[in-house]
Amino acid sequence: MFNAAPFVASLGIRLVSIGSGICETELNVEPRHLQQDGFVHAGVQATMADHTAGGAAATLTEPGHMVLTIEFKINLLRAAQGERLSCRSKVLKPGSRLMVVESEVFCENAGTSKLVSKATASIAVVGSR
Amino acid sequence: MFNAAPFVASLGIRLVSIGSGICETELNVEPRHLQQDGFVHAGVQATMADHTAGGAAATLTEPGHMVLTIEFKINLLRAAQGERLSCRSKVLKPGSRLMVVESEVFCENAGTSKLVSKATASIAVVGSR
Amino acid sequence: MFNAAPFVASLGIRLVSIGSGICETELNVEPRHLQQDGFVHAGVQATMADHTAGGAAATLTEPGHMVLTIEFKINLLRAAQGERLSCRSKVLKPGSRLMVVESEVFCENAGTSKLVSKATASIAVVGSR
Amino acid sequence: MFNAAPFVASLGIRLVSIGSGICETELNVEPRHLQQDGFVHAGVQATMADHTAGGAAATLTEPGHMVLTIEFKINLLRAAQGERLSCRSKVLKPGSRLMVVESEVFCENAGTSKLVSKATASIAVVGSR
Repeated sequence: MFNAAPFVASLGIRLVSIGSGICETELNVEPRHLQQDGFVHAGVQATMADHTAGGAAATLTEPGHMVLTIEFKINLLRAAQGERLSCRSKVLKPGSRLMVVESEVFCENAGTSKLVSKATASIAVVGSR
Repeated sequence: MFNAAPFVASLGIRLVSIGSGICETELNVEPRHLQQDGFVHAGVQATMADHTAGGAAATLTEPGHMVLTIEFKINLLRAAQGERLSCRSKVLKPGSRLMVVESEVFCENAGTSKLVSKATASIAVVGSR
Repeated sequence: MFNAAPFVASLGIRLVSIGSGICETELNVEPRHLQQDGFVHAGVQATMADHTAGGAAATLTEPGHMVLTIEFKINLLRAAQGERLSCRSKVLKPGSRLMVVESEVFCENAGTSKLVSKATASIAVVGSR
Repeated sequence: MFNAAPFVASLGIRLVSIGSGICETELNVEPRHLQQDGFVHAGVQATMADHTAGGAAATLTEPGHMVLTIEFKINLLRAAQGERLSCRSKVLKPGSRLMVVESEVFCENAGTSKLVSKATASIAVVGSR
C-alpha cells in the first residue's frame, strides 16, 4: 500500500514500521514541502496522517479487503519547522466495517522532536477490489 | 501566497480566481497524484481544500496580517477519478482573529463534474511576520 | 425518531418539517439551555445538529434500517443568544451504508436570525434492529 | 464554571476532579439521556466532552480570562449503554490564545468501563467578560 501509492512515494514518505493496529512513517523535509512562511505545509502533514492511519487500519483487515478514508480531522498544533517529520498511527477502535485511527505527526529539529499535528480518521473497510 | 508556497506549486495547484472571501483553484490530475487504487489521494484533496481556504481567508485580512490553519476536517464523499480537480472556498464566518472557511473539491471526468470532498477549516489571523 | 428519543424530547427540540434528505427542528431557548455566560450551550447546539442530521438521513433509508452517527464536527461561529434556535439539515451525500449530512443552527433574537453553528456528520445506515 | 452552567447542571453532569490541564466529570445515566434505541444520546456525550474540555482548558488560563469552544469533533466509537458516563479531558496543546483539548468518554456497565467516544476541541481564550 505504501509503495503502490504514487502520491505518497512522490512526496518521499517512507514506511518505518508496521504492526497490529499501528504504523509509523517518516519524511525528510525538503524545500518543496514548505508553505509560504517556511513551515511544512499542512497538506504534507495531512497526507502523512491520513496514509499512515490507513496503513495502521489495513493491518487489521481480512484478506481481500481494502481501506478507504471516509473523513479525517487534523489539528495543526505548532508551526512545523525542521529536518524530518515522523508519523505514528494507532487504531483507536477496530471494526470489520469501520475503524477509527489516530495519527500524531512529530517534527524533528536539531535533535528535538515536537508533536506538530494530531489527526483522527474514520476509515471504511470495503470488500476486495 | 499561491506562488510563494513551494508545496502547492510543486503539486501543480494553480489559482483560478480570487475575490472578497472566495477563492478558486485547479489541478490537472497526473499519475503522481494518485493513491494505490488509481483515485486522487485524499492528501491532494486536503492540500487543495486547505490552501484554497487560506486564500479565501487572506482576502479578508488587514494588510500585514497572515493566515494560519488551526485545524480542518475533510469528508471524502466519492472516489475521485478524472482528469481535473477544482476547489472553491468561501468564508463562512469572517473575523479579525479567526475565520471559518468551507472548501468544496470537484473532480471533472469526461465532461462531468462531481463533488468529491468537502472541508471546513478554522483559520487564525495573526500579526505581521 | 423524534418523539421516541427521550433526550431530544426532554430538551424541548421539536420537529418542524421533514422531506427527502432534509429535516428542520426548533427549540425555544430556556434558562436551562445556557452555559455560564448566558449563551446557549454548545452541547444543546450539537444535540440539535446531530439529531436533525439523523432525521434528514433517515428519510433516505430503506424500511427496516436505522441511522447511527459515526462522528460529527461542529463549528461554533457566534455566541448564541436569543429566544429560539432552529436547525436545518441536508444530506450532502446519500448512500446505502454511509451518508454525510450538514446541519446549520440559527439563533433568532428580536426578529433577527443568525447562523450560530454549522456541523457535518457522518451517519452509518445499519440493518433493522 | 460547572456549577454556573445551567445546561450542564440540568443534565446532571458533575465535576469529579480538576488539575493543571486536566478535568474529569461524571453523569448517572437516566432514561431522559437516551436516544430512540436505548443508548445514551450523542448529544449528552458531546456536551460532556465539550464542557469537560473547557474545564481542563480553564485551569491553564490567566485570571480574568474565559474559554470559548471554537469547534469540536467527536467520534462515537460504540453504542453507549450502561449506568454511568465518565469523561476525562486533557489539554494536548496549551496556549495563551488557543488550546487544543482531547476528551474521552467512558461508559460503565455492570462493572466494566468502555471508551465510547473521543473528542478533540479547539478552545479560544478570550479577555475578561
